[in-house]
Amino acid sequence: MRALAEEAVARCLQLAQCTEEPGRITRTFLSPPMRRVHLLVGGWMREAGLDVSIDAAGNIRGVRGSAERRLIIGSHLDTVPNAGAYDGILGVVLGIALARVTSASLAIVGFSEEEGVRFSVPFIGSRALIGSAQDLLDSDARVGDAIREYGLDPSRISEARLPGMAYFEIHIEQGPVLEHLGLPLGVVDSIAGQSRWSVTFTGAANHAGTTPMHLRRDALMCAAEWFLAVRQTALGTDGLVATVGRCEVEPGAGNIVPGRVKSSLDVRHKNDLVRLAAVDRLLAPSREIGARHGVVVETGEMLNAGATPMDSRLVELLSKACEGFAAHTMTSGAGHDAMVMAPIMPAAMLFLRSPGGVSHHPDESVLIDDVAAALICGKRFVESWNG
Amino acid sequence: MRALAEEAVARCLQLAQCTEEPGRITRTFLSPPMRRVHLLVGGWMREAGLDVSIDAAGNIRGVRGSAERRLIIGSHLDTVPNAGAYDGILGVVLGIALARVTSASLAIVGFSEEEGVRFSVPFIGSRALIGSAQDLLDSDARVGDAIREYGLDPSRISEARLPGMAYFEIHIEQGPVLEHLGLPLGVVDSIAGQSRWSVTFTGAANHAGTTPMHLRRDALMCAAEWFLAVRQTALGTDGLVATVGRCEVEPGAGNIVPGRVKSSLDVRHKNDLVRLAAVDRLLAPSREIGARHGVVVETGEMLNAGATPMDSRLVELLSKACEGFAAHTMTSGAGHDAMVMAPIMPAAMLFLRSPGGVSHHPDESVLIDDVAAALICGKRFVESWNG
Repeated sequence: MRALAEEAVARCLQLAQCTEEPGRITRTFLSPPMRRVHLLVGGWMREAGLDVSIDAAGNIRGVRGSAERRLIIGSHLDTVPNAGAYDGILGVVLGIALARVTSASLAIVGFSEEEGVRFSVPFIGSRALIGSAQDLLDSDARVGDAIREYGLDPSRISEARLPGMAYFEIHIEQGPVLEHLGLPLGVVDSIAGQSRWSVTFTGAANHAGTTPMHLRRDALMCAAEWFLAVRQTALGTDGLVATVGRCEVEPGAGNIVPGRVKSSLDVRHKNDLVRLAAVDRLLAPSREIGARHGVVVETGEMLNAGATPMDSRLVELLSKACEGFAAHTMTSGAGHDAMVMAPIMPAAMLFLRSPGGVSHHPDESVLIDDVAAALICGKRFVESWNG
Repeated sequence: MRALAEEAVARCLQLAQCTEEPGRITRTFLSPPMRRVHLLVGGWMREAGLDVSIDAAGNIRGVRGSAERRLIIGSHLDTVPNAGAYDGILGVVLGIALARVTSASLAIVGFSEEEGVRFSVPFIGSRALIGSAQDLLDSDARVGDAIREYGLDPSRISEARLPGMAYFEIHIEQGPVLEHLGLPLGVVDSIAGQSRWSVTFTGAANHAGTTPMHLRRDALMCAAEWFLAVRQTALGTDGLVATVGRCEVEPGAGNIVPGRVKSSLDVRHKNDLVRLAAVDRLLAPSREIGARHGVVVETGEMLNAGATPMDSRLVELLSKACEGFAAHTMTSGAGHDAMVMAPIMPAAMLFLRSPGGVSHHPDESVLIDDVAAALICGKRFVESWNG
């Protein structure tokens, strides 16, 4: 398996050469470098004994065996700007490797789009595969134009639907948990639900020299108090992550007391009830802090997306397949194609340790031993599912 | 005096019509609208029995009597972008009014530049009046070009020096202190010294969904802890103001843990020793907080300007002249032309209440009663100084 693992990594690095920007890895939905990716991946699929086609959404699929027993193994071939070599791509390459070392009825899919970079809409590939991409074409004409420009026919998007009995995705963790635990693999039991809020503090902009401390209505000081309350609450809630990623100060000059701060709150948890209750507890102190300092606080919900549990039978099967590797059962804090597939068919995900927790960055990497472990466990999983 | 006060306010509003931007008050150093300002102010000066001239720095001066007994009364005629009608201008207009109601040897000066907007260098006008503007011309050719373009001769800048026995400036407070105390006037005993620092927190940018709370090195959370420590220390130090006006988060996306925060610290106090000791106490916690969270903190000094005390004899004289108005003795947290004049000759400043503490804003205003009070006390001051 070690040789197969080395080959898989080499293939990821080869695909990384297919980029829109010389010197960086950037490959958005149906951009020109995707043609060479299709050529390479198609060749490897044929080599693995799969029938290769490209559907109207630009997904490349290698299929064998009967649809009644078909396990779909997939991940995405597009990247964020200035990406690493493994996010998504590794899952496709390992799917092809699994097709070579098993004889199961399989469809290996390289999704054309997951990141949402080109048209600010993610999951174009997997949404087409489950037959629900027509909405996308209707709401944004540029998607159809891009498909046509690539030489495909958007009017045939409904034919991209691929029947299957279950979905399996291998992906790098993109976080530090497995590394921190010293483990190569993780079995995903759920993809976290997500809340996003905007939180704006409006006080009074004043001269930094002429406004005594006790007569200020400093929006940034209020925001800072709230940021720390967010951290405190999140640290006290098992499995919760809460992030203030945005903090824009107006007017933002060193000699002016901040009059307004526009900030954000991102909250994720595998249990939707826990998440929604946490959002209430996270937002409440902002109003109390604002009232204490004469600062008006406005909050607005931007996103409320429910958690996606993986199929419990498949999770059990995958955990068994990982025996000997002490795989960690964990929640995925990031979204994946498995999120789109799970409502349609039983789905499971296997995570590989991300060294340094680094992803969406040129330094993204994997360890050869971890890739070999994923192949060993993936093979056992495919065989046990099929058996 | 009430009629004179009403006239003074009307004149400020008339000068506010001279602007580079229709609908907003913006009048930078020797910009085209300054010509009409010179025409109007020159006319009012002549009406008050003053000899009018414009020096090579574009200052307009109305002079009468002997240089040996000359009191210079001045303020500036330029504005910040989107300014109010009174900052600087009111002091010039009231100087002219005082020339009408007294017979003292006076020079009323309307400085061409104080705000530093056009060339990022403040005090061009007053620095020329004390004979130290040659440096400005040498270090930035655009200043000389602007003077030439206005029809003046930069080679004669040294002739702009105006001898005088004392300097007096009337100015709006630009802060909330007098309003908070319910008083019309303030006697400035010192212009605060000022420290400016940059403070940068560098942690690690990470995925908001995949990075557990305890594995984060969140630059914004560290910065927030430090912001609150700054407020705490400043509130506990009499007469100190400390401001964090800038807080720029990188990458600044809602779904990414902040990797870097660039912030600023502005510290002012009338006592330089108190200010410099406070800066040490304000910066120290940033390093301690950073060390606790694996975040690197870098600090850099941008400015260290000493306090400028007003002349104690003039302050006493001015306080006496304000009898009956309960004038508040106070520090100016903002810089003024008096800062430039004070090292050359005894200087004093009279503040007028700023309704709402508002300045550098179209809503900047004054109360007619306060303007009348300033005229009454200003007249007494000029007569007592001259007598």
